[in-house]
Amino acid sequence: MQAAQDLFSRSGFESASVSEICQLAGISKGAFYHHFPSKQSVFMELLAEWLRGLDKALEDLRSNQPEVPQSLIQMAEILPAIIKAAEGRLPIFLEFWVHATRDPAVWETAIAPYRKYKEFFIQMMEDGISGGSIPEMDKETAALAVMSMAIGLLLQGIVDPAGSDWAGVGRESIRLLTDGLTRRST
Amino acid sequence: MQAAQDLFSRSGFESASVSEICQLAGISKGAFYHHFPSKQSVFMELLAEWLRGLDKALEDLRSNQPEVPQSLIQMAEILPAIIKAAEGRLPIFLEFWVHATRDPAVWETAIAPYRKYKEFFIQMMEDGISGGSIPEMDKETAALAVMSMAIGLLLQGIVDPAGSDWAGVGRESIRLLTDGLTRRST
Repeated sequence: MQAAQDLFSRSGFESASVSEICQLAGISKGAFYHHFPSKQSVFMELLAEWLRGLDKALEDLRSNQPEVPQSLIQMAEILPAIIKAAEGRLPIFLEFWVHATRDPAVWETAIAPYRKYKEFFIQMMEDGISGGSIPEMDKETAALAVMSMAIGLLLQGIVDPAGSDWAGVGRESIRLLTDGLTRRST
Repeated sequence: MQAAQDLFSRSGFESASVSEICQLAGISKGAFYHHFPSKQSVFMELLAEWLRGLDKALEDLRSNQPEVPQSLIQMAEILPAIIKAAEGRLPIFLEFWVHATRDPAVWETAIAPYRKYKEFFIQMMEDGISGGSIPEMDKETAALAVMSMAIGLLLQGIVDPAGSDWAGVGRESIRLLTDGLTRRST
């Protein structure tokens, strides 16, 4: 996996071959295919590893903070770390997504983390609505509003890291949305 | 340009060559380079053409609607058309961005539309703040909050078009943010 990560960064996802990964890792192709069915499965494992930290941070925030609006505001604080972690990885991500758009099976795997986060936020909004910290509304809509804000902040932070103070913008943006969520007009 | 668009869709941005574009268009390479310095400049022209409709819609909304919060809410109504217009173009966009990350000069051109929309929204927020329809706050932060929401909605709508009712989610998400913007706590 370290060899694959190094090669993907250096040559790109498309150019890196399983042979080269094996050569760099000093293992046989047989050993490789014993662990991974394909090159994209190594990538998915790397992606899962990168996301593990995010998953942990999100779960911690939820379990330590029963109030949903406060959870959202605290989540803004982890945005800069995610932007930082994605540094230099944008080309590999984009290339993997190009690859994924060409194969429906790979595509489904590629968007699985998105579906998982969507479920996480729907559950969170359901908790907020049933607990009374968020007024009655469609939980999926509330979840997607929060995810839209987070995805838009992350994407801009990754594409234009020096363009703004993303820690400050993230904090204020999430606060504006949380204000809207908690005091929404009906 | 039509030939280039067809080829980019069929073979991808990277695979399509200037020779193939010329062959399909029935023109000489000399004629091509008389109009375009490079393959990416054709892509940038295509992108500019696709964005022309969006630019027009944004300008119309601003000029017809002096109240900034109402402008924002009306903007939500054009999200489905943008998602629809991007249909089938995701692979070309992603591939172009991969290409752009490899060349700083191309990168600067590739993010020029982003910088232009950022200026547009900063100006809009400045108008809202000076006109009193948005409470005193940092105009760039307000602009980036709105853009984050819009970008996140568009990206999810493009990646997972059937996953939600993006017209409804877009409308409600922008309304939540606008509520937060106009009634923010100080």
